[in-house]
Amino acid sequence: MKDKLRRKLHQAFFEHSTPTGKAFDIFLMIMILTSITIVMLDSMPSLHVKHKHTFHSFEWFFTILFTIEYLLRASLAKRPMRFVFSFLGIVDLLAIMPTYFTLFLPGTQPLLVLRALRLLRIFRIFRLSHFLVDIKFLTSALTSSFRKISIFFLFALVVVIIMATVMYLVEKPEDGFTSIPKCIYWSVTTITTVGYGDIVPKTPMGMVIANILMMIGFAIIAVPTGIITTEMAIAIKSRDTNHEICRSCKKKGHDHDAIFCKHCGAKFEAEEEELLE
Amino acid sequence: MKDKLRRKLHQAFFEHSTPTGKAFDIFLMIMILTSITIVMLDSMPSLHVKHKHTFHSFEWFFTILFTIEYLLRASLAKRPMRFVFSFLGIVDLLAIMPTYFTLFLPGTQPLLVLRALRLLRIFRIFRLSHFLVDIKFLTSALTSSFRKISIFFLFALVVVIIMATVMYLVEKPEDGFTSIPKCIYWSVTTITTVGYGDIVPKTPMGMVIANILMMIGFAIIAVPTGIITTEMAIAIKSRDTNHEICRSCKKKGHDHDAIFCKHCGAKFEAEEEELLE
Amino acid sequence: MKDKLRRKLHQAFFEHSTPTGKAFDIFLMIMILTSITIVMLDSMPSLHVKHKHTFHSFEWFFTILFTIEYLLRASLAKRPMRFVFSFLGIVDLLAIMPTYFTLFLPGTQPLLVLRALRLLRIFRIFRLSHFLVDIKFLTSALTSSFRKISIFFLFALVVVIIMATVMYLVEKPEDGFTSIPKCIYWSVTTITTVGYGDIVPKTPMGMVIANILMMIGFAIIAVPTGIITTEMAIAIKSRDTNHEICRSCKKKGHDHDAIFCKHCGAKFEAEEEELLE
Amino acid sequence: MKDKLRRKLHQAFFEHSTPTGKAFDIFLMIMILTSITIVMLDSMPSLHVKHKHTFHSFEWFFTILFTIEYLLRASLAKRPMRFVFSFLGIVDLLAIMPTYFTLFLPGTQPLLVLRALRLLRIFRIFRLSHFLVDIKFLTSALTSSFRKISIFFLFALVVVIIMATVMYLVEKPEDGFTSIPKCIYWSVTTITTVGYGDIVPKTPMGMVIANILMMIGFAIIAVPTGIITTEMAIAIKSRDTNHEICRSCKKKGHDHDAIFCKHCGAKFEAEEEELLE
Repeated sequence: MKDKLRRKLHQAFFEHSTPTGKAFDIFLMIMILTSITIVMLDSMPSLHVKHKHTFHSFEWFFTILFTIEYLLRASLAKRPMRFVFSFLGIVDLLAIMPTYFTLFLPGTQPLLVLRALRLLRIFRIFRLSHFLVDIKFLTSALTSSFRKISIFFLFALVVVIIMATVMYLVEKPEDGFTSIPKCIYWSVTTITTVGYGDIVPKTPMGMVIANILMMIGFAIIAVPTGIITTEMAIAIKSRDTNHEICRSCKKKGHDHDAIFCKHCGAKFEAEEEELLE
Repeated sequence: MKDKLRRKLHQAFFEHSTPTGKAFDIFLMIMILTSITIVMLDSMPSLHVKHKHTFHSFEWFFTILFTIEYLLRASLAKRPMRFVFSFLGIVDLLAIMPTYFTLFLPGTQPLLVLRALRLLRIFRIFRLSHFLVDIKFLTSALTSSFRKISIFFLFALVVVIIMATVMYLVEKPEDGFTSIPKCIYWSVTTITTVGYGDIVPKTPMGMVIANILMMIGFAIIAVPTGIITTEMAIAIKSRDTNHEICRSCKKKGHDHDAIFCKHCGAKFEAEEEELLE
Repeated sequence: MKDKLRRKLHQAFFEHSTPTGKAFDIFLMIMILTSITIVMLDSMPSLHVKHKHTFHSFEWFFTILFTIEYLLRASLAKRPMRFVFSFLGIVDLLAIMPTYFTLFLPGTQPLLVLRALRLLRIFRIFRLSHFLVDIKFLTSALTSSFRKISIFFLFALVVVIIMATVMYLVEKPEDGFTSIPKCIYWSVTTITTVGYGDIVPKTPMGMVIANILMMIGFAIIAVPTGIITTEMAIAIKSRDTNHEICRSCKKKGHDHDAIFCKHCGAKFEAEEEELLE
Repeated sequence: MKDKLRRKLHQAFFEHSTPTGKAFDIFLMIMILTSITIVMLDSMPSLHVKHKHTFHSFEWFFTILFTIEYLLRASLAKRPMRFVFSFLGIVDLLAIMPTYFTLFLPGTQPLLVLRALRLLRIFRIFRLSHFLVDIKFLTSALTSSFRKISIFFLFALVVVIIMATVMYLVEKPEDGFTSIPKCIYWSVTTITTVGYGDIVPKTPMGMVIANILMMIGFAIIAVPTGIITTEMAIAIKSRDTNHEICRSCKKKGHDHDAIFCKHCGAKFEAEEEELLE
């Protein structure tokens, strides 16, 4: 009896392709979404005044629910410590901590939106589908772009600092350009083409500099885009040519989205486990 | 005589390459554009006061015209029910409903702009041209990008929710950051580089967070662009290599923009019918 | 003597690779830039009051200079009528007309900035350089993208019209959403991520719709970018494989930036003439 | 003894792969970052009033430190004059000059942020890593895009000038469209999708023109992106095929990120020296 419960729980928590696992995953997603919605509604002054206590009860309900889930998940894992210090383990802990904190420190409820990070668990529901291939593709393209993009960002940063200082010297403090850090805030707002308009140049010289910064921003957006596009093209090419080796029969030539080895029928799950457990 | 009218009507409604069909398509486009213009002009207070009754008459004129067209189209279709529940059939119905609704519910006239959806019929005029090839190309590139872009959007959503909550804690409600949902509105406005400037950070900490969000937005715009560009490159490659098979003579090797089979002269219309009927 | 002057003039106007031609082209550019600058300075109220008459004299000076140039260019051209109705011929005429108009219609001086179009002549200075190859490359990529981008724009337009009407129904006229055309102005401002902030949503529902429109804008910018990038990639590939045929010796295999045929030494100028004369 | 010091100094300044060189590079980065931070904090009115003298002392401390570094670097270089007139040599000089200027001209301290340019030295720390390959890649892609992008910018400039003038004629000066140069500032703000909202169209005609400009901006951003992406794709292809020749053994076939010749073991440093010295 107890053994059966244990098996069911293991299915619910770790076997995402079984009906029990799928049902549990969907239930969990709904709980997470509802709990985030409650936190958001509670932050609205008009609703807070009226439904304060209802929201409070819901928050504790979800916290206790997620605490039980966290403890079960940790105790059922093969290596509990590995789970606790894994990315998803830390996220699960962060999702329940703020409510306990409110016992000592009021005002930390909004931190409960950290539960939004738990939405990333949604990929577990689709783990056996093509989503995993796409996540791997995006991750590989972004990591190989990282170095080039960071070079690009350093250059952009130097441009931003220098242009901000020029504006600090050119424009008057009364118009919002009160200090270099504030001018940097304005520079970033302008170069990224956001353009709030809370601080705008008033002098002809300032307008010219602002326009130059805008054109730099308009042109350099092409650089990260170009980097990521070419890296994605490379990732697709290598995906199409370098097929992986089956761990069981050591044979090659599998399609990039194969779930089972076409030679020996072994399941390709090892990697996914590492990625999403 | 009656038979001749019926044949003419069939040409007008379904045979877009005949002179009658072309003339009718162009007439229809002009009617749709005029009716949308009338709805827009009617929404302008100054014109509404003056020409209220003229606009009203026009709206009923177009509604009755489109109703007749709808009924004729449905009765002339091979399978009327299939037309009624097709995309364009529903659009055609939506384009006439609001006027009838105004008999019971005043204030629904603006919904008549749903007629704008009928503008998509414009592609029927060009159906035998290269436009169809391009629509198929764009559609295939976008559908194969869909999964990757939705992963990207989920990550972006989690970033937006967390940054919005941080801003809710950092900034004061007096400056517009009154609740988490409103902060999410601000976050989306900032990350998409729209930057209305109706809500702007006032504290140094808030400015730093805003700048980080801007830079995230500026950098991640490269991700959907990269995805769609690579998918388009793949779609072009496969279009150039995998030629379709002629349904009549079963031979391959046709150019992707061929309208007639170069072996037996059969017309390649089957697919288009499905796409645009 | 007269014959020598005529030859010199022909060199100045049409032989851009001779020293006389180069000097004349540079002189012309400086004249055009100066005349545009004068028009701009004249539009500034503070300067207009002080230097009204000086600016006026300069405008007439440049107009007479460009008129002489226009008449000489037309009379020296092989086929004067062809020049008059060519793109650059019309631009040259537009650049002198507004000053003569001011004799009858005051207030048309600002139209003199149409002289800015004459700046496109700058490419003539570089005609023998690599610029021409690049212009041809950009033009071919953009024209072959045109159909796809117009499909994309039609879809975007339908989205803009419908979203604008929804906002017209959702938001109050007091907040700036006074009519459907004005809401379309707001929609375009939002979907293109410009975001002036002169009209902003005030209701929760309006904010949600605004955010959806922003995200659509943020995502669909990828579509024209993807189209143009892939067309450019195609243009480069075809440039590298389909070399042109020399008109003199009919041999192939020239590099895309070759100015002289490597087989017979003939100059490849015919095309350029057509493009820039 | 003196000889040992000299060797240590040479290691610190020029041998970035030795422990001494690495330690010195990191120390230098920290000094540069701290000195920039001081300049920024000093520009904030509230902090300036309180810590004026502390900041002043720090500025002089860093200036003297960087002066000593500059003199040592120049005297230790093989060809001192070449260093003084190199890009990094001029940057190093610019980084110390403003403090000395303040002795005669007050108010030039903010120019000390020119020290930000010294941050580009950070690449020296990574010189033996893959960063150099990436900088070379980005530089080559950008330089080969330069001509095409400048053509694009000239066309955009002509569009901006003409649209600005049309707005100057259409909108009233009271709404901010006071002169053509100011309208150009507005045009650039709009076409780059920054959209401050400090100057916005009020007339229906002005709104239509603004919307057209926005759509142009939204569409043409694709052009520089397409150019840079295709140039990057070309740069990657040529990087993969045209391997460089070793200067020692004249053999080919090295990977593009190789640091040592795989045939004779010679170090590939010549190029880096030129790029970063």
